[in-house]
Amino acid sequence: MVVGSMLHINGKPTVHFSCKSNHDRPSYIPKPTAVKMTTITTTTITTAPSILQPYWASLQADIEAHLKHVMPYKDPLVVFEPMHHLVFSAPRTTVPALCLAAGELLSGDRHQAMAAASALVLLLAANHTHEQIPSKPKPKPMSRPKSNTMSFRAFSPGIELMTGDGLIPFGFELLSRSCDSVQENSDRVLRVMIEISRAVGSKGLIDAQYKKKLLSESDGGESCHVERIMDIMEKNEGGLHACGASCGAVLGGGSEEEIERLRKFGFYVGMIQGMVNEGFWEEVEVVKDLAFKELQYFKDNNRDVDAISSFIIHV
Amino acid sequence: MVVGSMLHINGKPTVHFSCKSNHDRPSYIPKPTAVKMTTITTTTITTAPSILQPYWASLQADIEAHLKHVMPYKDPLVVFEPMHHLVFSAPRTTVPALCLAAGELLSGDRHQAMAAASALVLLLAANHTHEQIPSKPKPKPMSRPKSNTMSFRAFSPGIELMTGDGLIPFGFELLSRSCDSVQENSDRVLRVMIEISRAVGSKGLIDAQYKKKLLSESDGGESCHVERIMDIMEKNEGGLHACGASCGAVLGGGSEEEIERLRKFGFYVGMIQGMVNEGFWEEVEVVKDLAFKELQYFKDNNRDVDAISSFIIHV
Repeated sequence: MVVGSMLHINGKPTVHFSCKSNHDRPSYIPKPTAVKMTTITTTTITTAPSILQPYWASLQADIEAHLKHVMPYKDPLVVFEPMHHLVFSAPRTTVPALCLAAGELLSGDRHQAMAAASALVLLLAANHTHEQIPSKPKPKPMSRPKSNTMSFRAFSPGIELMTGDGLIPFGFELLSRSCDSVQENSDRVLRVMIEISRAVGSKGLIDAQYKKKLLSESDGGESCHVERIMDIMEKNEGGLHACGASCGAVLGGGSEEEIERLRKFGFYVGMIQGMVNEGFWEEVEVVKDLAFKELQYFKDNNRDVDAISSFIIHV
Repeated sequence: MVVGSMLHINGKPTVHFSCKSNHDRPSYIPKPTAVKMTTITTTTITTAPSILQPYWASLQADIEAHLKHVMPYKDPLVVFEPMHHLVFSAPRTTVPALCLAAGELLSGDRHQAMAAASALVLLLAANHTHEQIPSKPKPKPMSRPKSNTMSFRAFSPGIELMTGDGLIPFGFELLSRSCDSVQENSDRVLRVMIEISRAVGSKGLIDAQYKKKLLSESDGGESCHVERIMDIMEKNEGGLHACGASCGAVLGGGSEEEIERLRKFGFYVGMIQGMVNEGFWEEVEVVKDLAFKELQYFKDNNRDVDAISSFIIHV
């Protein structure tokens, strides 16, 4: 049983599946019928592990406390009230916490990567907010009425659109302001900005969302769906966690080797979450092993990996 | 005849009007009946001067050529095609060109502030794209049918929403990548990011758009409308041009004095455009004088201000 083929292209790990007929569908899919659109449309933002481990929860609490500090209720309230609501009501992901964890692993200081973690919270909240905005016209009267499963909307789509638009530059502003003339970390901060821009941008998360949209409209074979789901997962859960971990590593003062290993570790963390969400259970153990191998490097270099390994142990 | 009172608070010039009854309406409004909602709803993004001066047009052409170079048609086409369309079909503003002009004034190199000018194009295009997304439900069948004046939509609202979301981080990525280890300009680039984040963010352009939305729903007195229109104009046209000019000055290597003077000059350039759009003709000449006074400082220091002064001469 293998997890497709784990390719490493330009240092970026990818899980590759070729698009074949149903006959050639990879054998590792335990429940092929489980690959349905209803599944993928609910996994845009990676959900946090169902068991909130103490370490993850503690990192998340620190990030939220920091965000409440830098984003107080202030004038204009008409702007900051929905901003607060949408940031703190968006689904939590493990991406920002992994960013802090990577920074802590390398620097010993949990707050070393706080600006990047906070920016990630804001950018992912903006993305989630915009994703919730209805973009299609209402169904015609002749359509079959849907059950009342719409989530509660606290603000109008117009306000949510604008608020999301405000969150994105605020995330970048927080990062820019984190520059410290004593630490002379401006080059690191700029590098993190490039990492984050790419992960959430048109070749990252946005591309995944386009592809998800296309997939939801397609009627391709199941094996094609699997390949496309994995492709989306690589940029969504995988790419975002790779970004979080690498940003933490950059701000934690990591070497290029350390940054790239943590990037791969983050990618595996995200892929594991995505695979769990999709029901690809058998692959999860394989990818966990790959993730542990990346951590082994740090263990061999006398780093304490117990805390960060909880991102995969408890999944 | 005075232009309200030009206040300088914390170095930021503001035009202050108190909200009074119609009886106390400032006497400088030549055509009070011209202050209508139909006017303000069309001026979210400052339109370029109707006469395209050679200098402005030349700067704009350079920026667009640069954008086409850094944003080629590439995979994923489903992402980059709408991205191109929405960037180059968005209304042009003089904000990015003013950024280049300020950089050129101080450094002698027109391309010194190209990254900031390009980022401004992308962020304003994203804002415009999102502003065009219909956020309200369609009018009820009983409503009076509107004339067919809807602008042509090349892409669905969903695609435009996502594309706008991709443009914003790409703008910040371009800026981050503009760091030059030879020039050691990372601190300048980070400062520019803060400037831009604030100008387009929740206390800047987004706040102006919230206020515009509230204004469009209000039934306040005319004089209140004037005050609120000016308030919106300060963050929209004024704030964006102040940002453009100050970013150019920062990247052009300006001193704090030069940066703040160009920020004020930019603010006046934007306010002049806003006032022209609103029909506040008599105030325009007053603000032009204020703008020229800022340029005089550079003239006194042997800078050639002929080119940049075209931003106010031809309005």
